[in-house]
Amino acid sequence: MNINKYIFQMGQQAQQAARQLAALDTATKNCVLLAMADGITNNHSDITSANTRDLEAGRAAGLTDAMLDRLALDDDRIKAMAAGLKQIAELPDPIGQVLSVNNRPNGLTIHKVRVGLGVIAMIYESRPNVTADAAGLCFKAGSAVILRGGSEAQHSNAVIFNAMQSAGISAGLPEHAIQLIDTTDRAAVHELLQLDKFVDLVIPRGGESLIRAVAEHSKVPVLKHYKGVCHVYVDREADLDMASKIVINAKCQRPGVCNAAETLLVHEEVAQQFLPHITKELLSHNVELRGDERTQQIVEEVKPATEEDWTTEYLDLILSIRVVENLTAAIEHINNYGSHHSDVIVTADEDAASQFTRDVDSATVYINASCRFTDGFEFGMGAEIGISTDKFHARGPCGLNELTTYKYIIKGTGQIRK
Amino acid sequence: MNINKYIFQMGQQAQQAARQLAALDTATKNCVLLAMADGITNNHSDITSANTRDLEAGRAAGLTDAMLDRLALDDDRIKAMAAGLKQIAELPDPIGQVLSVNNRPNGLTIHKVRVGLGVIAMIYESRPNVTADAAGLCFKAGSAVILRGGSEAQHSNAVIFNAMQSAGISAGLPEHAIQLIDTTDRAAVHELLQLDKFVDLVIPRGGESLIRAVAEHSKVPVLKHYKGVCHVYVDREADLDMASKIVINAKCQRPGVCNAAETLLVHEEVAQQFLPHITKELLSHNVELRGDERTQQIVEEVKPATEEDWTTEYLDLILSIRVVENLTAAIEHINNYGSHHSDVIVTADEDAASQFTRDVDSATVYINASCRFTDGFEFGMGAEIGISTDKFHARGPCGLNELTTYKYIIKGTGQIRK
Repeated sequence: MNINKYIFQMGQQAQQAARQLAALDTATKNCVLLAMADGITNNHSDITSANTRDLEAGRAAGLTDAMLDRLALDDDRIKAMAAGLKQIAELPDPIGQVLSVNNRPNGLTIHKVRVGLGVIAMIYESRPNVTADAAGLCFKAGSAVILRGGSEAQHSNAVIFNAMQSAGISAGLPEHAIQLIDTTDRAAVHELLQLDKFVDLVIPRGGESLIRAVAEHSKVPVLKHYKGVCHVYVDREADLDMASKIVINAKCQRPGVCNAAETLLVHEEVAQQFLPHITKELLSHNVELRGDERTQQIVEEVKPATEEDWTTEYLDLILSIRVVENLTAAIEHINNYGSHHSDVIVTADEDAASQFTRDVDSATVYINASCRFTDGFEFGMGAEIGISTDKFHARGPCGLNELTTYKYIIKGTGQIRK
Repeated sequence: MNINKYIFQMGQQAQQAARQLAALDTATKNCVLLAMADGITNNHSDITSANTRDLEAGRAAGLTDAMLDRLALDDDRIKAMAAGLKQIAELPDPIGQVLSVNNRPNGLTIHKVRVGLGVIAMIYESRPNVTADAAGLCFKAGSAVILRGGSEAQHSNAVIFNAMQSAGISAGLPEHAIQLIDTTDRAAVHELLQLDKFVDLVIPRGGESLIRAVAEHSKVPVLKHYKGVCHVYVDREADLDMASKIVINAKCQRPGVCNAAETLLVHEEVAQQFLPHITKELLSHNVELRGDERTQQIVEEVKPATEEDWTTEYLDLILSIRVVENLTAAIEHINNYGSHHSDVIVTADEDAASQFTRDVDSATVYINASCRFTDGFEFGMGAEIGISTDKFHARGPCGLNELTTYKYIIKGTGQIRK
């Protein structure tokens, strides 16, 4: 079969499965999720072998250590996949939730009810555990899912998928509710992105270039964030001790993730006092520092920052630093150079905090806390499928609810329009 | 200035204005809306003259009577524009509304707060009153708007826009919060649809071909419905008297709108009894009838329906009719041929009603009421910008809330991630 027909058929099957999913009750869905978890556990050694094969091919192909680490599934990671599916079974079922009831004067009752989106396509790189996470979340959220993992993880993904699917089907999973594209041909992705007839949402997860390529070519709506250029702004009314702890945490605790800080902005009135101290601490954490002229005047070890630095997601132990004239200048910097992901103000001044949270145009804005908390688990969503920096549909961390839509159900007694 | 630069600058100005809008309080916004309404009223005769000019040009260009009717602004319609703006001033302000509060175990408080989308582009045809409606709704919803009306209404739109804008600015409207593209060059629309850097949402309103062209070329998310192919399904447990009234209302009360019915589905067990009666009544309302073979066997006057009929939005006094074997067949017909807009079941059987509302994949599903109620006013939203048959972001009638997004505001006391 040619690729286009294969993907078309997959889309069609997914849409039919989505309609079956709408009729599954919560108990059945949870049984399926537990069965999928058991499927993973019962195929632990097969998953390990397949992953070993992927790792060997990856090493031969010259993948970096960071890439190999993302690809690797040790015992703990395999157990975590099964545990993740069990956790999703424990989460409340979003489907059928009544979002509002509106009794109209003419006697009509309008229920706004949460329903599944339909068909979700998940396009991701490296990490094979996304295969289990995405399948579990989309299924619980009442949508069929079409998975397309990275070619470097193809053997791992196939074994994980088969383990979940065969165990799931025996517990009531509709046959095509979870599908994996089993070719590494890129034409498959291109075709999938044109299928707005069947696919309701595409979620790309991976590097910025993957996400940009998907957004560029997709006719289907995309839930995404390109990158996280997150800021910590230390206001003139900041508790500088608190500010230090937040900056170190935001930059150093896990620098390779999207909610780590990339830029430090400091109010000019506290720069002289704060910068020598915080840069010393950052340097002791092996952070490379790049700053504007005023920062360089205060701290010798700071290298010059270029215009490009302000828009760069380092994903590494590098921090850009700028001294700003005031709160407004900080907000402007964040809105102009940032990625509308997660930004922090450290201040004891409530007016400054209000202005910052109102005027910074980002998905999540923090007062006196680290931006590292932007995460579905930390937000109490139980799990997340990703983070959105778009304003359309869902913004910030996206859990089960963000994977749904709604319909209006209207009950009458024969009402007609006058 | 060339078109691209002109549109780029408009986008940039709109984004800046959107940031100013975020800081406007409700009282100021309402004063601006009342001033805009006065602006319309005070320029009543200029609007009439401009509209006369458009109508003359339209007649010369051979516009149909229906098109000229949409274009025409008589005294009542001009008064209705002003009244509409005053009504929007009365509606609750969606901006700043706290959607949820989440106190985390680590002491963080997460507020989910409704905020403006940013910049909305409105692309519409003929009806010049959309200029006032869209400007008022987007402004109250905290977004800057870029308006692009039909070339046939250009003089009317320009006078309405200038009247609203100059009156609005004197009451506190940011200068670029409402902008009108003052060229009829189509390149302007194309350029606008590429500006995802500045524009957050595009809303096309008009014929299906306009909407398809916008959706096809836009890099910006689109809120839309292509068409309304709405169904009334008369179940075997229907009150046939109620069914008649609903069918006549759904088809005849205003056939030229998207929430009018285009197809009647009848359960085979009541077809023999219902069809002779309802077709007689429809014919007396001058409705042309096109049916499947079984319908034709029962009623002589019914012409044969082609496959194309089932997907056609007639917007006219034409109805397609099909006899179905059962509820499931009715649901399948609606999901396969419909436009996911508004569909009705007439039945006294609660199980059938539940299955219908669960399995019909449409924005609004009705039990025992006419589909003509799918409308922001009828839903109690106070006003609507349009109806969405998409599942992403907003579905069904879209009022002020559907024109907004949200951000997370997180307050801490120095929390860092462990």
